[in-house]
Amino acid sequence: MKNPVLVVGSVALDSVETPFGKADEVLGGSGTFFSSSASHFTPVQLVGVVGDDYPVEKLEPLAARGVDLAGLEKVSGSSFRWRGRYRHDLNSAETLETHLGVFSHFRPNIPEQFRNAPFVFLANIDPRLQLQVLEQVKKPRLVACDTMNFWIESRRPELVELLGHVDLITLNDAEARQLTEHTNLVKAARWIMDKGPKFVLIKKGEHGAFMFTRDSIFFAPAYPLENVFDPTGAGDSFAGGFIGYLAATGDLSESNMRRAVVVGSAMGSFAVEKFSNQRLLEITRADIDARVQEFRQLVAFDAEIGE
Amino acid sequence: MKNPVLVVGSVALDSVETPFGKADEVLGGSGTFFSSSASHFTPVQLVGVVGDDYPVEKLEPLAARGVDLAGLEKVSGSSFRWRGRYRHDLNSAETLETHLGVFSHFRPNIPEQFRNAPFVFLANIDPRLQLQVLEQVKKPRLVACDTMNFWIESRRPELVELLGHVDLITLNDAEARQLTEHTNLVKAARWIMDKGPKFVLIKKGEHGAFMFTRDSIFFAPAYPLENVFDPTGAGDSFAGGFIGYLAATGDLSESNMRRAVVVGSAMGSFAVEKFSNQRLLEITRADIDARVQEFRQLVAFDAEIGE
Repeated sequence: MKNPVLVVGSVALDSVETPFGKADEVLGGSGTFFSSSASHFTPVQLVGVVGDDYPVEKLEPLAARGVDLAGLEKVSGSSFRWRGRYRHDLNSAETLETHLGVFSHFRPNIPEQFRNAPFVFLANIDPRLQLQVLEQVKKPRLVACDTMNFWIESRRPELVELLGHVDLITLNDAEARQLTEHTNLVKAARWIMDKGPKFVLIKKGEHGAFMFTRDSIFFAPAYPLENVFDPTGAGDSFAGGFIGYLAATGDLSESNMRRAVVVGSAMGSFAVEKFSNQRLLEITRADIDARVQEFRQLVAFDAEIGE
Repeated sequence: MKNPVLVVGSVALDSVETPFGKADEVLGGSGTFFSSSASHFTPVQLVGVVGDDYPVEKLEPLAARGVDLAGLEKVSGSSFRWRGRYRHDLNSAETLETHLGVFSHFRPNIPEQFRNAPFVFLANIDPRLQLQVLEQVKKPRLVACDTMNFWIESRRPELVELLGHVDLITLNDAEARQLTEHTNLVKAARWIMDKGPKFVLIKKGEHGAFMFTRDSIFFAPAYPLENVFDPTGAGDSFAGGFIGYLAATGDLSESNMRRAVVVGSAMGSFAVEKFSNQRLLEITRADIDARVQEFRQLVAFDAEIGE
């Protein structure tokens, strides 16, 4: 059996406006996007919380594809809701409303049967909760985390402590600069690696992603899509493809991690083609493989420059 | 003998402030950066204008490396001067002062012996002057042009006319969006190709460059430098490496054009390591080849994702 991935993150309801349309109360949240993406590669164990108003039947397609929902707590109260809008350039979301609901009292409780998960992804939640998860799991092979500007500002000491306990962090370029106070991303990545992680994945949205290790840099472009429909969830879908592929292969060699970054980029590129996790649920493994080949074509050149 | 490249552009004096230092009245201008870069690959024929205050002896290193200055007019008046500043993030220049001087009356006059140049680069000048150059040259194999926001605003009809006469255009992402009124770069590139050019090179600064053709897209990242010293001239150095390499090889196949984009990216990455064209004059062909190999390493991955 393939290595399962444990993900702890949000399960939300998103209402999104883009120049191309509107979606109301659709599946959202980092845990949802990550799971939808990673489940193409390996079994997923999702830990999160929803209110008693959550349309859990909408998660059935995830369960059907190997996402174990035993860690999804349902508590009394309203679910995490986010309402946002993207303007013409689709580059940044404008948050119109955030309603944390039951998520504001989330205390991750990892079911016994998930505690041996060899691959763990701590999606973007309070670093104190991310640390609590690590107290509950037993010797994972790879622990990865995500974070955001809000935690960098409000929970810096805990976030820096977390860095000492993870193998890999994914964050975007603005967050990397904010966290490290280095404008230059090479320096920012080194600052982070000095705090613990062996791998730093810096996501630049439409400009691609860098993977830094102690002695190498890998870059994967974003796929130049002609029609980006809704950017919500691209980063978590990227992480799901990346970690899901690593777990499925169980291979943490540099060459396989590079391939995993491209797989993640492919998954991010699918995620933005439709609202919510809709496109991620439609695609097949053949679609993914074909897109990875397109990435290969996109950057392929022969370095022999003799004239 | 290798194919020469004719370049028509500015030869200026730059005064630049960056977070790392100041340089006063150093060599600048699109023609200067292009020539400094292209001359690593092939003979260059430079057409431009300077005032009688220009320290032409500072161009001797260019002449020594095969830049023919017979087309550099010296006229009475003061030279083109630009004064600019880069803030901490180095992403965009703040122009403090532009003094066009003799450049404001520039009428390119292509010397007879340059009119057969097989490769022509029309650097960023008034599209009406770019068109005048094309009336003077005889059947070049490849004509490329650059442009900027100022001409897109003030000379749109002439710029669109120019597009019908060039094989290739280089411009940055903001300019591509401004010219085409498409936010999406794939659509922007197609809009431009519909006006004439077979190749569209969209430069994204620190985010790399795309080369679009009718049926392919190639992407080259920017080199992740730890120390960017002065971004001035990066785009023209890129163009110099790109066109210079194409001219030297005389090979316009897709695979060679991809290699040329990477050579251009390498030259752009050297240009920003020191003030003015200083670094471009220091480097050797071995340095360039080594950096091209580093680009290869930066994007290398094996697309076989079988588990």
